[in-house]
Amino acid sequence: MSQQKTIALDVMSGDRSPRFRIAAALDCLSIHPGLHFILVGDRHFIRDSLTGSATELRSRITVVHADQVVTMDDRPSLALRRKQNSSMWRALEQVSMGVAQACVSAGNTGALMAMGRFLLKTHPGIDRPAIIGQIPSIGRDTFMLDLGANVDCNSEHLYQFAVLGSLMLSEVIGITAPTIGLLNVGQEDIKGDERVRLAQELILANPGLNYQGFVEGHDIFRGTVDLVVCDGFPGNVALKAGEGASSYISHVMRQGTGLTGWRKLYSYLALPFVRHMVRQIDPSRFNGASFLGLQGVVVKSHGGADQREFGYALERAVMEVERNAIYRINDKLESYF
Amino acid sequence: MSQQKTIALDVMSGDRSPRFRIAAALDCLSIHPGLHFILVGDRHFIRDSLTGSATELRSRITVVHADQVVTMDDRPSLALRRKQNSSMWRALEQVSMGVAQACVSAGNTGALMAMGRFLLKTHPGIDRPAIIGQIPSIGRDTFMLDLGANVDCNSEHLYQFAVLGSLMLSEVIGITAPTIGLLNVGQEDIKGDERVRLAQELILANPGLNYQGFVEGHDIFRGTVDLVVCDGFPGNVALKAGEGASSYISHVMRQGTGLTGWRKLYSYLALPFVRHMVRQIDPSRFNGASFLGLQGVVVKSHGGADQREFGYALERAVMEVERNAIYRINDKLESYF
Repeated sequence: MSQQKTIALDVMSGDRSPRFRIAAALDCLSIHPGLHFILVGDRHFIRDSLTGSATELRSRITVVHADQVVTMDDRPSLALRRKQNSSMWRALEQVSMGVAQACVSAGNTGALMAMGRFLLKTHPGIDRPAIIGQIPSIGRDTFMLDLGANVDCNSEHLYQFAVLGSLMLSEVIGITAPTIGLLNVGQEDIKGDERVRLAQELILANPGLNYQGFVEGHDIFRGTVDLVVCDGFPGNVALKAGEGASSYISHVMRQGTGLTGWRKLYSYLALPFVRHMVRQIDPSRFNGASFLGLQGVVVKSHGGADQREFGYALERAVMEVERNAIYRINDKLESYF
Repeated sequence: MSQQKTIALDVMSGDRSPRFRIAAALDCLSIHPGLHFILVGDRHFIRDSLTGSATELRSRITVVHADQVVTMDDRPSLALRRKQNSSMWRALEQVSMGVAQACVSAGNTGALMAMGRFLLKTHPGIDRPAIIGQIPSIGRDTFMLDLGANVDCNSEHLYQFAVLGSLMLSEVIGITAPTIGLLNVGQEDIKGDERVRLAQELILANPGLNYQGFVEGHDIFRGTVDLVVCDGFPGNVALKAGEGASSYISHVMRQGTGLTGWRKLYSYLALPFVRHMVRQIDPSRFNGASFLGLQGVVVKSHGGADQREFGYALERAVMEVERNAIYRINDKLESYF
């Protein structure tokens, strides 16, 4: 693999115009002098979009053509078989071939995971990749996985997520002995189903994991632990519920329902700030979420991300490449299995 | 069963002093002239707490002694076998014997459910009771079940929850043809696990249910549907995550982090309002949640509820008794199975 930092970008996938993603890549190139991009998608469209951009930036861009696009409705298993000429597949392929060190896509999560597993493989000992996100919470950010890649995990999968997340935080983010909580419906040991109780036993049996116990939905935003481990179903629901509750507050403040006089005014004036908070609550928009467990950096941006938001996903990929995330995690994984 | 409205109150269970719950019962009696309470717990303590209260109110109170208390740590199955002299058991027994029409408890949810199933039985066709709560959302309140009584539901259980919730809304709350959504990690039909996809088929097969499709975590607070149906694990997590995200916003506003000058002041001044919103987001505190599926009204108050919050749980029980919730639901259930 070359020493040069190269990120493959799935230009075509996502709800918004691919132009935003190309513009975000140009922004990112101007910030990082040593960086290269492989823009994957319709070659005519990409070249057309690059017209007028600085020659120096264009010199650090390679275009790889792909004539298919994975849509949001595509069933992952079908996309895997029938869309091997898609921008998503070709972008991941740049990583599997060692041409790029990371892939960024705003496309169909299930398809990205299926193709990622097929092309990049998982780390030894890891059955499934999971999506990890960074959530603003009181005092410090909380990292959480899985955010929706897997909706029927068993105890062993949850244990693997705890190991992956813990290594990401200690080896890549730089948090010493990160504290870990397992998401449940209560803190008492009798709470939850067999699956989380058994996962707790597996995690407790490993002294390398700084496990704190069960945590609940509100703990995600309270900074109770550095890392919240969960199945992707409740993880995804919790994240979106947090965003929904914040939007509700912002909505009621905007309406000023139940408020009178000065308080209505104050509330109105504080609104931009609340809106800012609401946006921050949704990490898929704000931070980019990355797949953990694959033998390659894959960052998933929100499908509806605008240029700035997509830029965050690109920054996340740059950070993971610069810090050698995959090698560091791979290196330490062995001792856990 | 007598025509008199009687509510059995588990005085002893809950995190706070039982005095708050007795005070809430006295408040409730003063609002509802035809109402009676059976206070269940330590008879000496209860009599002592009633000293000094108005004679008329005391004339509508019966005390039933119980010398055991179910704790929050008690395993439901053990509580069921060994705590048949507890205030929780005795309070539920008042309903099963037909002396009271409802039971209210702030105790251990799992034990309340286990004892409720044993003493009151479920409606014909219903395997498990679920907890339904009322959540403030944009435009209208959203009802949601299950909020944590069951953490490993199958598709048939989810279907039963949809039927129970729909009947509660149409027959008791008075919402015509309530709209129903099934909680999932995405709106597309391919999303989620086998369990929610099969539950969707079961619900769609019944024309009596006004089903709208899959909903996501944010929809709970957006008023997308009248009723959100889910397993108790993600349901509980979503609810608490919503409360956590709101608390986070309130915290950041209090700190004024990242704000300067006037905006900091505005934010500070709007804070009481945001706090009020945060409290509203947590329905277990604000509305009381009730068990659906049992052949008797059982309302679950938050363990840490104060006098006012416990009062909401009592009001919910009064409402369900006045509207004959159990009979109305029982009457209509047959056509769904």
